[in-house]
Amino acid sequence: MKKIKAGIINVAGYAGVELARLLSQHPQVELVSVTGRSTAGKRLDEVFPHLTGSNLIIETELGDVDFAFSAMPHKESAAAVLPLLKRGIKVVDISADFRLKDADEYPEWYGFTHPAPQMLEQAVYGLPELYRRQITSARLVANPGCYPTGAILALAPAVKQGLVGNHAIIDSKSGISGAGRTMSLKTHFAEVNEDVAAYALEGHRHLPEIIQELNLLQPDQPASVTFVPHLIPMTRGILTTCYAPLTNRLASGKMEEAELRQIYLDFYKDESFVKVTTSPPHTKHTLGSNLCLVYPTIDKRAGRLIVISCIDNLVKGAAGQAIQNMNLMLGLPETTGLEALAVYP
Amino acid sequence: MKKIKAGIINVAGYAGVELARLLSQHPQVELVSVTGRSTAGKRLDEVFPHLTGSNLIIETELGDVDFAFSAMPHKESAAAVLPLLKRGIKVVDISADFRLKDADEYPEWYGFTHPAPQMLEQAVYGLPELYRRQITSARLVANPGCYPTGAILALAPAVKQGLVGNHAIIDSKSGISGAGRTMSLKTHFAEVNEDVAAYALEGHRHLPEIIQELNLLQPDQPASVTFVPHLIPMTRGILTTCYAPLTNRLASGKMEEAELRQIYLDFYKDESFVKVTTSPPHTKHTLGSNLCLVYPTIDKRAGRLIVISCIDNLVKGAAGQAIQNMNLMLGLPETTGLEALAVYP
Amino acid sequence: MKKIKAGIINVAGYAGVELARLLSQHPQVELVSVTGRSTAGKRLDEVFPHLTGSNLIIETELGDVDFAFSAMPHKESAAAVLPLLKRGIKVVDISADFRLKDADEYPEWYGFTHPAPQMLEQAVYGLPELYRRQITSARLVANPGCYPTGAILALAPAVKQGLVGNHAIIDSKSGISGAGRTMSLKTHFAEVNEDVAAYALEGHRHLPEIIQELNLLQPDQPASVTFVPHLIPMTRGILTTCYAPLTNRLASGKMEEAELRQIYLDFYKDESFVKVTTSPPHTKHTLGSNLCLVYPTIDKRAGRLIVISCIDNLVKGAAGQAIQNMNLMLGLPETTGLEALAVYP
Amino acid sequence: MKKIKAGIINVAGYAGVELARLLSQHPQVELVSVTGRSTAGKRLDEVFPHLTGSNLIIETELGDVDFAFSAMPHKESAAAVLPLLKRGIKVVDISADFRLKDADEYPEWYGFTHPAPQMLEQAVYGLPELYRRQITSARLVANPGCYPTGAILALAPAVKQGLVGNHAIIDSKSGISGAGRTMSLKTHFAEVNEDVAAYALEGHRHLPEIIQELNLLQPDQPASVTFVPHLIPMTRGILTTCYAPLTNRLASGKMEEAELRQIYLDFYKDESFVKVTTSPPHTKHTLGSNLCLVYPTIDKRAGRLIVISCIDNLVKGAAGQAIQNMNLMLGLPETTGLEALAVYP
Repeated sequence: MKKIKAGIINVAGYAGVELARLLSQHPQVELVSVTGRSTAGKRLDEVFPHLTGSNLIIETELGDVDFAFSAMPHKESAAAVLPLLKRGIKVVDISADFRLKDADEYPEWYGFTHPAPQMLEQAVYGLPELYRRQITSARLVANPGCYPTGAILALAPAVKQGLVGNHAIIDSKSGISGAGRTMSLKTHFAEVNEDVAAYALEGHRHLPEIIQELNLLQPDQPASVTFVPHLIPMTRGILTTCYAPLTNRLASGKMEEAELRQIYLDFYKDESFVKVTTSPPHTKHTLGSNLCLVYPTIDKRAGRLIVISCIDNLVKGAAGQAIQNMNLMLGLPETTGLEALAVYP
Repeated sequence: MKKIKAGIINVAGYAGVELARLLSQHPQVELVSVTGRSTAGKRLDEVFPHLTGSNLIIETELGDVDFAFSAMPHKESAAAVLPLLKRGIKVVDISADFRLKDADEYPEWYGFTHPAPQMLEQAVYGLPELYRRQITSARLVANPGCYPTGAILALAPAVKQGLVGNHAIIDSKSGISGAGRTMSLKTHFAEVNEDVAAYALEGHRHLPEIIQELNLLQPDQPASVTFVPHLIPMTRGILTTCYAPLTNRLASGKMEEAELRQIYLDFYKDESFVKVTTSPPHTKHTLGSNLCLVYPTIDKRAGRLIVISCIDNLVKGAAGQAIQNMNLMLGLPETTGLEALAVYP
Repeated sequence: MKKIKAGIINVAGYAGVELARLLSQHPQVELVSVTGRSTAGKRLDEVFPHLTGSNLIIETELGDVDFAFSAMPHKESAAAVLPLLKRGIKVVDISADFRLKDADEYPEWYGFTHPAPQMLEQAVYGLPELYRRQITSARLVANPGCYPTGAILALAPAVKQGLVGNHAIIDSKSGISGAGRTMSLKTHFAEVNEDVAAYALEGHRHLPEIIQELNLLQPDQPASVTFVPHLIPMTRGILTTCYAPLTNRLASGKMEEAELRQIYLDFYKDESFVKVTTSPPHTKHTLGSNLCLVYPTIDKRAGRLIVISCIDNLVKGAAGQAIQNMNLMLGLPETTGLEALAVYP
Repeated sequence: MKKIKAGIINVAGYAGVELARLLSQHPQVELVSVTGRSTAGKRLDEVFPHLTGSNLIIETELGDVDFAFSAMPHKESAAAVLPLLKRGIKVVDISADFRLKDADEYPEWYGFTHPAPQMLEQAVYGLPELYRRQITSARLVANPGCYPTGAILALAPAVKQGLVGNHAIIDSKSGISGAGRTMSLKTHFAEVNEDVAAYALEGHRHLPEIIQELNLLQPDQPASVTFVPHLIPMTRGILTTCYAPLTNRLASGKMEEAELRQIYLDFYKDESFVKVTTSPPHTKHTLGSNLCLVYPTIDKRAGRLIVISCIDNLVKGAAGQAIQNMNLMLGLPETTGLEALAVYP
């Protein structure tokens, strides 16, 4: 069978290079073109020695491809993606540029006026566990943010079932690769090693994305979400701990752990990449894999739901999910090229 | 001036050896006796080479001291402390054995019947910021747990002022030294490096301690607390993120950040070891020091209070606070021997 | 094609569980039986949640297999392997029990008398880059130690060519997983994080293995090797820096970097898993992969050869190399199941 | 007693800020002025929150001081230091600008022509263990580099005594803070965490400094030194492993460990900051302290001397040693302000 030719715009960030790694191992797709800015003209495996065996040269413009991923920063990504769509190339956009349905949110959260508001409706939010059918027929998929992936997968079954009143506190702990490959004091080893801190308390850009999706899951009640991300001294992984008051019936003690667990098992029963665990999950058990581990439990003393999720922020939180979306868009089995087990320890 | 002779029961855990380090540098106290079990008979600086210059031999029984610290595990600590008190020696107990006022909590949370319930009332909970006066005249001080220290200092001003209805979600991220020096898979480097996980979701032993103190701060409303600790890959430090719904007046937007901040500044205005910060604090800025950094803020969108605190779990969360208590009990300036700045980076 | 049935004796250490991970992804082999001691009776994916999808139960005795790996500790491994060989099962032994050709070395270095000295000659030292032909027809392969793999691959071309007089200083830096999954203070996170130390200065057990192989490569001159291993705060990876005085002709400046590099390129020209790099390699570029990166250079000022090698100690240093050996023993393409790129960052 | 007024030029790097921390705790010296470039105008404790209690404003020019430290980069440091010397202010220069006695080395190693070659002779190399007397009367002390401090203290007794023929291989493992606070991919957490690599194989700038000092210790034989530094994933600390062939008498087995050890004990018998250990030392046991731990041993099989040293690169390797030099230059007890024990774990 002839392989599908895929390309990556801006391969030089962590999401881009992780896409390159995963695509290099995909049996039905061939990575034929990658672009970069400061790295253009160099061999891909010179800039990223772990991509051994690649003979690609980093280009300034994407070559002839059947399918494209954009790993550009926000605002620039929309500009790069729109011409590709016009040429009939299907695209998964890793940036935030097509995630929000309401164009008015872009000036507020991202500081720019959206160049193609009409596309926001066409674009499908690329969380296959919620939008599989739509993704299958989409031309443009907006790959979710890393934090929203973990948070929404943790809360979706409970919110959908009305177990909680769409109020949630989301406390996320992310590895440093989530801050990108750009240099800053925030990613300097000596500054973040042996350290933990919260950031973006005034409102992280992933918040409107989380609210949008929770509102779609539970339209009866507008989501009231507090989201606090933290950086912790590890490279990969996000652990998200969600807290929500249980609605009255449940808080009164009638809901048992087993019942809650069954709701989650049912919700995710056909999913290849979401596992409901029986004990609090570890990010280490997702490192390098496309899995999301979800653990729901009840704090009976306080009448609160607690759900914990784990993902590898660069796989299920970025590049792996992008390939999952690509597989769906191309009619391939959803797990193709994503079967790798986590690397432990 | 003649130095006070101090001793440490069970020097071989991380709290014990940190006490030894800090006492070695205390100008008014001399560490004259330390005990251990498997390490008895060895030189202290052989077992712990960083304690260079010490010529103490680890003993099986405490020698002649004016003041004692117990760093024994719970249950065993009470047994070790009671005879010392009878001999008129003042004691700071690092264990949990005298922290809870209600003897009935011990069987439930710690699995043993308290051997001296009458002492629970005499013992003072050793959080100087709340109980300075009582500590000054105490013979037995129960040194708070590491998590409760960070959580209570974060919440006390708000709870006391009635800003929140004594409902709180406490999400803590602790370095691995908090799990002790005992060997277990939970502390094996390859297991916890590049990993984060929650634990004790069924109820951590520090929960009753937190509830007890919040109830004392706000007796009108019983505390409803959800507490989830996490282990993250660093050695020292606890960052605690607290979430609480603001009471109606405040949630309606009338409270400004500045007003909240002022409440915290006022509450801690005379404290040497609590600093109200103007941006989210980093555990790295407390490493090796007795400081607690506290950052209160408001999530206006959701009407919630967020307070973040940082401590070094082995200093303000254990040995440093124990020395702070000792200073008060001995009539010494509270900061004596605790002036060291944090080691950064 | 019917898959070959493989088994692992003692799956519960890091080498064993890494074998299980890699075999789970091997297209021609099915992992059908695993044994353990304290974990016997449990599901494999309960003890090791990253092995999701496995339905194996850990057994006390190996079931019906065509091929076996032993990941037992030394001395016990020989006892486990010998009966399998008698039953005609081919074996790769991860332990040291069949690595040394001279039975007299076992009492000295490993503290036991070898139970089957006659097997030491039959067993093939499983470094495919040196013994590919012999491995192909072997029934018992002794998988090399992690340090020897990195050190011998670094030095072999130079020693074979007589560039150095078989004198070498080998300074290795290993991640903590190399110390095994057994608990000890040496692997306690708080002890080894933010720390580095040398160990086994009196003579590490991998030394006789290194000497044996260097002597076979250059029989004219007995190897004089100083080997100092260090533990550094990371989970996986070994970087080995080798120093050797250049023989006179070369030290006098006649050898250029390019010539040296060409010798290495020639030596490894047909190798899938050894790459000669053009700049000092990083262990990160081997994480999770079976690659060994080798970088030879000359210190012209001092007339010394410097060669640096990197491996993932659990893959090329243990389980990956074991599978490479298995592939050869079974007549499969050598790289089958070992194509995964390193996980970066 | 009136305190001496000290200042720091360029407080914003890791050496500068560590000087500020240590000086803040010095009983006889008051830090009265600090300069910075991009941070000028800000409060010191705003840029570095761990320096709590300081009310200094970072300035562009040094104020009125009795004593100055320069933590400027090389070349710029000389330009900053020379005017201070003219004003009669004693200076410790943390940079390399006055370390090398031969002005011709500066163009080769540092890429600039030295602006004041005549000062190179006046300047004293600030290793108190070798040059205490000269430092005491010096006006300008060139503080040694971090790697040379560890390497020279490890080798000095052996080289001085002629145990080795001034041939040495020096393999150093440094924490990332050694690479400075400047941002680069080399210090990006995700790049260096879970990684180790060698660098500067073509010749590190600290090499001429090491050679200069070994030649002064053993003028009979020109030093032939191979020095390879490595970066490992920790913040602070350098472990240096030195290898040297023993001269004939010793290699023939006549030297015992005890004799070697005695030579080291004698050499350092009056030193407060060098400890000869009885087992391989850990960098963790020096974290935050001014100690250098030295462990000499013999590889009897190969006839080589091995010496391992540990320092905290920012204390004994930079700021602590600078203060030790200042104490000597000011006639203060050498250990003043440097008594802090290492922070363990």
